[in-house]
Amino acid sequence: MEHELHQLFDPESSTFTYLLVDLPTREAVVVDSVDHLLERDLGVVRRLGLTVRYVVETHAHADHVTGAGLLQQRTGAQAATPFKCGISRADIQLAHGDTLRFGASEEILAIHTPGHTSGSTSYRWRNHVLTGDTLLIDGCGRTDFQSGDAGSLYDSVHERLFTLPEDTRVWPAHDYKGNTVSTIGHEKRHNARLAGRDRTAFIELMANLKLPRPKLIDIALPANMLLGIPHAA
Amino acid sequence: MEHELHQLFDPESSTFTYLLVDLPTREAVVVDSVDHLLERDLGVVRRLGLTVRYVVETHAHADHVTGAGLLQQRTGAQAATPFKCGISRADIQLAHGDTLRFGASEEILAIHTPGHTSGSTSYRWRNHVLTGDTLLIDGCGRTDFQSGDAGSLYDSVHERLFTLPEDTRVWPAHDYKGNTVSTIGHEKRHNARLAGRDRTAFIELMANLKLPRPKLIDIALPANMLLGIPHAA
Repeated sequence: MEHELHQLFDPESSTFTYLLVDLPTREAVVVDSVDHLLERDLGVVRRLGLTVRYVVETHAHADHVTGAGLLQQRTGAQAATPFKCGISRADIQLAHGDTLRFGASEEILAIHTPGHTSGSTSYRWRNHVLTGDTLLIDGCGRTDFQSGDAGSLYDSVHERLFTLPEDTRVWPAHDYKGNTVSTIGHEKRHNARLAGRDRTAFIELMANLKLPRPKLIDIALPANMLLGIPHAA
Repeated sequence: MEHELHQLFDPESSTFTYLLVDLPTREAVVVDSVDHLLERDLGVVRRLGLTVRYVVETHAHADHVTGAGLLQQRTGAQAATPFKCGISRADIQLAHGDTLRFGASEEILAIHTPGHTSGSTSYRWRNHVLTGDTLLIDGCGRTDFQSGDAGSLYDSVHERLFTLPEDTRVWPAHDYKGNTVSTIGHEKRHNARLAGRDRTAFIELMANLKLPRPKLIDIALPANMLLGIPHAA
């Protein structure tokens, strides 16, 4: 009863936003928000009586515009983004191994997991890991644009995520099939792309996906480099 | 870290399904499942390595077919429904004040909250209350069909839900606006239909909503009286 993790879903971009809550102090952290859902997010914060300490990004998204800058303005929270994403407007630049503290004694650990993008970072909190577009449920993020690299993603997942305790809850940034949560143990054994496939075979698989260019990339990426508030640049 | 509440959403009927989990024993309870999302629910259960003890209904739904009977068959869980709903195929008939025990020492309390239907029941677990269609976020269930009664709903909410601790998390069976969770304190002060309105004014409001007949009622209701497996009748 000391903490809560809330998962919110954007049906338009299939993006999950997460709210990590320390109950005794009512302090919260928002991860991967979406700009057009600002009022939804502020509604949850208001109903639960929370104070947002940090708005955090797993990477510079190509498929939706972040709500981080708007939340930063509306709640007074500090924005924290991975150092290697180069989002210079953020208040805090997170490197591998850095921690964000909130609440009475909560600690979020930044785990640099490059591959989907070179800056992509996962966040571990208690028995949870928020994996962004690095590790998805039964899949993984694409690696064919925006500094993506299949070999790096393979190494990140195998060396830095699959080494977490088996029971760790995996909370991805997206799901397109109605899934919500998985565990490290299950993904290690059953992930359709990453389980039982060696590095070379994985790189070959990712090179041949032939995915269409993300529809929103030309709008979302420059906006997200400015925390989603381009007009304030 | 001892327990988890998972909220799952059906975009088709805007129904929330809940999964209550006792982590030490990995035992779980599913509340208000949807038949066509059986594989989604079994997927979460499998990924988290859970054993489902009970499948529970808040009432006999008119807008979707329950997955309770299918989950009962596939997982070996017992089905528990409110006694006053008359769903005779259920293994357990819950009256007001009855409890369901699962995990090491988890206890779910049945709170009879008639109004949306005469059998409608809310479930309290730890600092959570699952309110079915009785209390929604910033609203409430309709009371104009299927043994509904606006006065009863008003009394149920004011006497049996708004008397819970203010911080109690409110988890409804539906939301149509992207909301996911609220608190008793917030609904008591801000619920658009129930806050600051006396019983007579509420009954009048509900009598004049002029809502269309639910599209699925003629299919869903008879099916749900048989736990969603009519062909097995």
